[in-house]
Parts: sequence; structure tokens; C-alpha cells
Amino acid sequence: MATPVKVYGPPVSTAVSRVLACLLEKDVEFQLFSVNIAKGEQKKADFLKIQPFGQVPAFQDESITLFESRAICRYLCDKYIDKGNKELYGTNPLSKASIDQWVEAEGQSFNPPSSALVFQLAFAPRMKIKQDPGLIRQNEQKLAKVLDVYDKRLQESQFLGGDEFTLADLSHLPNTQYLVNATDRANLFGSRKNVERWWDEISSRDSWKKVVDMQKTTA
Amino acid sequence: MATPVKVYGPPVSTAVSRVLACLLEKDVEFQLFSVNIAKGEQKKADFLKIQPFGQVPAFQDESITLFESRAICRYLCDKYIDKGNKELYGTNPLSKASIDQWVEAEGQSFNPPSSALVFQLAFAPRMKIKQDPGLIRQNEQKLAKVLDVYDKRLQESQFLGGDEFTLADLSHLPNTQYLVNATDRANLFGSRKNVERWWDEISSRDSWKKVVDMQKTTA
Repeated sequence: MATPVKVYGPPVSTAVSRVLACLLEKDVEFQLFSVNIAKGEQKKADFLKIQPFGQVPAFQDESITLFESRAICRYLCDKYIDKGNKELYGTNPLSKASIDQWVEAEGQSFNPPSSALVFQLAFAPRMKIKQDPGLIRQNEQKLAKVLDVYDKRLQESQFLGGDEFTLADLSHLPNTQYLVNATDRANLFGSRKNVERWWDEISSRDSWKKVVDMQKTTA
Repeated sequence: MATPVKVYGPPVSTAVSRVLACLLEKDVEFQLFSVNIAKGEQKKADFLKIQPFGQVPAFQDESITLFESRAICRYLCDKYIDKGNKELYGTNPLSKASIDQWVEAEGQSFNPPSSALVFQLAFAPRMKIKQDPGLIRQNEQKLAKVLDVYDKRLQESQFLGGDEFTLADLSHLPNTQYLVNATDRANLFGSRKNVERWWDEISSRDSWKKVVDMQKTTA
């Protein structure tokens, strides 16, 4: 039996949960190693050897060590091409290009305002950090514009990359989960009918429901 | 003869120049169409049909329309696998994963502080926009930390992805060009000896020198 791949980091991290969702979709066996962020374990010398930026997740599979959640997801789809969900990263250069385009849109346009809002609205209160109303307003406006583009795309297409659930959709799950369920800004998604339909569909996948369970039990 | 691919946007844009460098490395014929950013042409209905976020570049090849510079680069390497520089996106899953990891590090860690500094230090004065000293200081500190990680990586490895010049390095050319040559912060790169060696090497490639010439003649 193949050695399970190793993931280092807590499931409550959006980047870690992105990788976990991909592993579950691809049906790849993995071991999860805890990294205590509150104690700063990600900044210690041993961890920096596998993740030089001191962030989670880090990842190991046989001889390879990787960081950056979206790069890890691409690697998993390439390496385990015949396992689990075979549509996840496309089946030809055109579908792959469309998926890559929307994974980049997530990383460059969706993630910056979303992760700022998740931090300000969901994490800052728990950590007793003062919220910044100007920053919240600015990022809410940015995210609304991005979601307007998404709503139009999702009017024409069932999923972001095309007719199938792919990495393009999966990559949006972690931040959206927090915004919809752990802040009072769910309406950013619920007020756009195609985005709402898409969110209902992608968030009810078994893979993602398992990740949310892991977040609850290991948080 | 194949129809040239189409790129829409000005070479002075960092995202456009990233795609141009990739096209020149891959020796893929292209036509460049101007988009007048100052006049807001990227926000007009016709342009939004091919780039819904109203940003440059947009890209067309046969039946496919794409946006997001890093996704376009990945597509070019996959589609034109047998043309030009064949090492650009790796030759096996392990080298590809290492390249993807550093392209993501560029997009997620290097680009945000770099592009903020390029805007504040190089473009704001030309556009008669007031600079924000707090933002400059904050992003300079962020970029310095990222470059410390790069310097260590480039002590062990000739290029970011491994022994060859790849998309991982190419993706850093546009912002670094401005920071080194159009701001007074060249020392961020020059003060780190492995980063300096790497920058000298990647910026002297013929492909990139051609892009810089295009920036001068079409700016």
C-alpha cells in the first residue's frame, strides 16, 4: 500500500482546508499533523525547513515537499490523475486552461478581499483584536464587484470552469464557508441568485462536508 | 501557417509583460492590440466580453479566450509544449510542482507588496497621485521578508524552481524590473547576493530585453 501523503496544519486554516478538500475529492490517503498556530509552531526552525515562509500548510509526498495550497492541489491532480474525481483539473488543455483561469481569479481577485473580511469579521472578535471598519467597508465593496462578475459567469455556466465541479470551485470553498456561516455578510452570496445556486451546490459535496466536520472536531 | 495568438493590453502593464515574456520564450507568434487604460477602454462593454473584470491582459487563441496572466502562461506552455523553451513549465510532475509552487509564491507573497510599491513609487508620481508613506513602509517590510526567503532558496538552487529558468522566475520579471529601474528601492534586491545574482541572470534573457524594448516604444 502506498504511504499516505502528509499535511501539516490545522483544518481551520483556509489554505489547509483547500488541500484537504482536494485530497478527499481525489480519494488520496493522507495523514494530518497538527501545527499550533497560537503557539507560533509554524515559525520554528523545523517547520521552516519544509515551509520557508512560516505559513500553513506544508505538504510531503514521497520525495517531494511543497507549500502553497493551490500548487499542492494542482500537484495532487497531476500525480493522482487516475484516482477519485478525474474531472477536478480538466481532461484536456482547453478545460484545464479555463480551470486555471478561475483558480487564478480566486487567488488574485476573490481571496484578497475575502480573507481580509474573514479575518476582520470572524477571527478578530475571537482573538479580541479591534476591527477596522474602513478596511471592512473597502473589502466588502471589492468583493461585491468580484461577485457581480461571478454571478454573470454562473448564469452562463453551471460551475466556474465549465460544466463540472473543479479546482476552480473547490478553491473558493474555505473563505466562502466562513463568510456565509461565521459572519453577518452571508447576503453577499445569497443576494446573487446564480452565486447562491452555485454555493448551495458546491458546499453540499461530501468532500467539503467532511472538511467542515474536521474543522469542528479539531479546532 | 498558424494564426497568431492575440494579446490585448499595453506592455507597460506588469500582467501584460508577463504574458509577452512567456510568448517570446515559447517562440509563439502573437499580435498585440492596444488598450488605452488612461481612457478606460478596459471597462468598455466590448472588452468586458473577453475580460469580465475589466483588467489587462485579455488573450485569444483559436476558440479560447482567457484572462489572468499566470493562467495564460500555463496554457501557452501546455498548448505549445514542443515550441521554444521546453523547460519553461518543467518536464515531469516533480519539476512542474516545484515551478507551480514558486509561481504561487510570486502571486500570493511577492506580488502584493511589489505591486503596491511599484504603484506608489513609480506610477503615483507620474500620475500626480499623492504617495502614502505608511503603505510604502509596510509593503517594503513585507517584501524584505519575502526576499529573505528567496535569498536562502537561491543559495541552494540556481533558479527558484530548480536548475533551469522557468515560469517561476519569469513571473517575477515585471514587478522587479520597475522596482530595480524605476524606483530608489533597487537595494532590496542588490543587498541580497543570491537574489542579485538571480536578477542579473533572469533580466538579461533575450526574451525579457525585448519586452523592455516594447515597453519603451509603446509606452
